[in-house]
Amino acid sequence: RLQERLSDLHPADIAFILESLPLDQRQTVWDAIKSDNDGQILLEVSDAVRQTLISGMEEEELATFASHLDTDEIADLAADIPKRAMLKILRSLNNQERTHLNTILSYGDDQVGAFMDFGMITVRDDLNLWAITNYIRKLGKLPSHTDKLFVVDQGNIVKGVLPLQRLLTHSPAQHVAEAMVTDFVQFHLDEYTADAARAFERYDLISAPVVDKQGQLQGRLCVDSIMDYIREKTDEEMLIQAGVEEDEDLFSSVWKSAKNRWGWLLINVATAFASTRIIDVFQDTILQMVALASLMPIVAAMGGNTGNQTSMLIIRSLALGQINAVNVRRLIKKELSLALLNGLFIGLIIGLLSWVLYYNLALSIVIGFAMLINLLVAVLVGLSIPLGRYKLGKDPAVGASIMLTAITDSMGFFIVLLLARMFLIGR
Amino acid sequence: RLQERLSDLHPADIAFILESLPLDQRQTVWDAIKSDNDGQILLEVSDAVRQTLISGMEEEELATFASHLDTDEIADLAADIPKRAMLKILRSLNNQERTHLNTILSYGDDQVGAFMDFGMITVRDDLNLWAITNYIRKLGKLPSHTDKLFVVDQGNIVKGVLPLQRLLTHSPAQHVAEAMVTDFVQFHLDEYTADAARAFERYDLISAPVVDKQGQLQGRLCVDSIMDYIREKTDEEMLIQAGVEEDEDLFSSVWKSAKNRWGWLLINVATAFASTRIIDVFQDTILQMVALASLMPIVAAMGGNTGNQTSMLIIRSLALGQINAVNVRRLIKKELSLALLNGLFIGLIIGLLSWVLYYNLALSIVIGFAMLINLLVAVLVGLSIPLGRYKLGKDPAVGASIMLTAITDSMGFFIVLLLARMFLIGR
Ligand SMILES: [Mg+2]
Ligand SMILES: [Mg+2]
Ligand SMILES: [Mg+2]
Ligand SMILES: [Mg+2]
Ligand SMILES: [Mg+2]
Ligand SMILES: [Mg+2]
Ligand SMILES: [Mg+2]
Ligand SMILES: [Mg+2]
Ligand SMILES: [Mg+2]
Ligand SMILES: [Mg+2]
Ligand SMILES: [Mg+2]
Ligand SMILES: [Mg+2]
Ligand SMILES: [Mg+2]
Repeated sequence: RLQERLSDLHPADIAFILESLPLDQRQTVWDAIKSDNDGQILLEVSDAVRQTLISGMEEEELATFASHLDTDEIADLAADIPKRAMLKILRSLNNQERTHLNTILSYGDDQVGAFMDFGMITVRDDLNLWAITNYIRKLGKLPSHTDKLFVVDQGNIVKGVLPLQRLLTHSPAQHVAEAMVTDFVQFHLDEYTADAARAFERYDLISAPVVDKQGQLQGRLCVDSIMDYIREKTDEEMLIQAGVEEDEDLFSSVWKSAKNRWGWLLINVATAFASTRIIDVFQDTILQMVALASLMPIVAAMGGNTGNQTSMLIIRSLALGQINAVNVRRLIKKELSLALLNGLFIGLIIGLLSWVLYYNLALSIVIGFAMLINLLVAVLVGLSIPLGRYKLGKDPAVGASIMLTAITDSMGFFIVLLLARMFLIGR
Repeated sequence: RLQERLSDLHPADIAFILESLPLDQRQTVWDAIKSDNDGQILLEVSDAVRQTLISGMEEEELATFASHLDTDEIADLAADIPKRAMLKILRSLNNQERTHLNTILSYGDDQVGAFMDFGMITVRDDLNLWAITNYIRKLGKLPSHTDKLFVVDQGNIVKGVLPLQRLLTHSPAQHVAEAMVTDFVQFHLDEYTADAARAFERYDLISAPVVDKQGQLQGRLCVDSIMDYIREKTDEEMLIQAGVEEDEDLFSSVWKSAKNRWGWLLINVATAFASTRIIDVFQDTILQMVALASLMPIVAAMGGNTGNQTSMLIIRSLALGQINAVNVRRLIKKELSLALLNGLFIGLIIGLLSWVLYYNLALSIVIGFAMLINLLVAVLVGLSIPLGRYKLGKDPAVGASIMLTAITDSMGFFIVLLLARMFLIGR
């Protein structure tokens, strides 16, 4: 009954339902509905949920599932399939399929090769459109997302692309060579997926050829895989900003979730400890003016906030490729002017607020001035971390916020306490 | 010369170059290259940069640009075009175009209606495929992203869709009624764009019909607009997390950037002040044990970090629609168990570290215990804020992190100082 009702649904919808179910119910539903061609459902669930579904399956079952999938789809599951089941699946493939699978698996998640499929239709440029139309009619079915055919020569080099649109609108007597588009976008196997995604957005692509170093056609990239990539990547960035290692199954065990979150928490413990060590050095200063204990966290926190604004805008511009050697100096100059303006403004506000609270002019001036200095430090650090990491060829975003906060916190405490010792204490 | 070299480029590439140029150079290049059909470039640049380009243009010029654009493209620019130029443009449109423009502009950025275009090809179901093929050949050109034709009846109700694929593979003698797909996805004008985007991802759509309440075809939604929407939305979320109001032109004036960043900074000043007020109440406690001044910021900060992990996962699951009345209780239970585990673990670590630093067992126990309590508070707050805002029909993500940090900071200070006064001072 359940089986019947669910079998009408799209695999992606069933995947969604499975993701929203607690572990025990999920297993029950999955056992009840799964049939030979439900490999599509495994493709659609999130990585975390896929592991729970696959962990309860037999080798035999997985191999049957795989036999209904394309090689690029098997590749998507490969990381989660146990080694022995994978060997079984590999044996069931023919030579070409095995080559395809190995090609995809040899590229990292950040490379175009990992995201291609092999559903391309290739034609020669000396045929006329009438012959092509006949060829397609004989094929009977086109792979999904086929908006164009790839025109290749004997050496399998891509000469052009023939949009289905032209096939429908141009004269059937025309040759492919005349009708094809030669000004087309193609990708290389080892190109960054992020760059390919930008190209799909810029040029509004639906599919595009993927070639190797020799220019030979190896596969095709489609907009649906690119959308999945974008979604996964942006989700990952959001989670990493919040200190979550990777995507979580809502209903995974407490232990599993704990492992996923302790990494960053421990780093946070370490940086929080390190940045507050400075306070110990100034214990006597605090004892002489205890108001500092409640004012210095404000200076520290505002530094973190301002630095984060700068570093996020830099990270985003780096990702968009908008920052280059020519304009980076202008950018730094602008952010520093802004920091000066921010510092004067926020320093004034915080100075005023502390005057209202403690009615101590010297204290207010020190706090306002410390604020100004810490904001300048914050923006310098907010610029340096992402730009520096980028120059070293590392991801500018990873850990940026944590390092920044550690520095702005300790500098905030240090500046306030140092200025206080110099100008407020024992006068 | 520059003009010639740039005119070979895709409008999106020129847009990218303009975005990476400082204001003065940008204006020079823009003045040099812009020609009548460069409205496409205006469409591709970011919102912030578009304003700088348009601000230097005459009404006359803008109207000429618009005359080369589709109505849905004019709608995309509308927010940035001065009122008088807009009136001029409106007068130059015919009745249907004006209706189209007004339809799009009457929907908010979160509704499907704002993202549609009108490039749909409609056919009747009593024709055969041969007639359709002839019709397309006569049209001579299909709008971009046409992967299917929309089959409508006399009342303009969508009966099905005819994929170009079927047009190419099915027998020309077949009638549209037989060849069309009746199990298709369509969207309503006032549906949430976020939901439509999810549907495009789930069902791997390229284009889909948009209908009104009566089911009459009003327009079409294409994957390229959806990708732009996803990118803009996720960028916005990243920036708002970092306290930046909206996307910034890298080279905008310092004043303009300042306005964009002061909003959140002021809110941060307010919350930072509020959460540290608690410290003043316990001045005597700090004076008696100054180590508290350096330990309490750690307890406060770790609360913020843990709460943020929880709230980000909840915000994400809410966005994916994975949380419902049935599973929310399980989820709360799981997060609280996790908080207990985290609290014991991190409390122990922090207790140990403070013992190493101050060699005071009672102090270590108090700090470790305060840590445990604050992590429980943090997770409760991290759950309540997004779930509460969601229940009230508000965006669960906006301001979540700031509110959370304000609460975990003040609670962190309060718990440490209260426990210290109760168990450490004057014993
Ligand atoms: Mg993955
Ligand atoms: Mg794939
Ligand atoms: Mg595919
Ligand atoms: Mg685009
Ligand atoms: Mg476009
Ligand atoms: Mg902070
Ligand atoms: Mg916009
Ligand atoms: Mg156009
Ligand atoms: Mg539009
Ligand atoms: Mg369009
Ligand atoms: Mg998809
Ligand atoms: Mg799919
Ligand atoms: Mg904090």
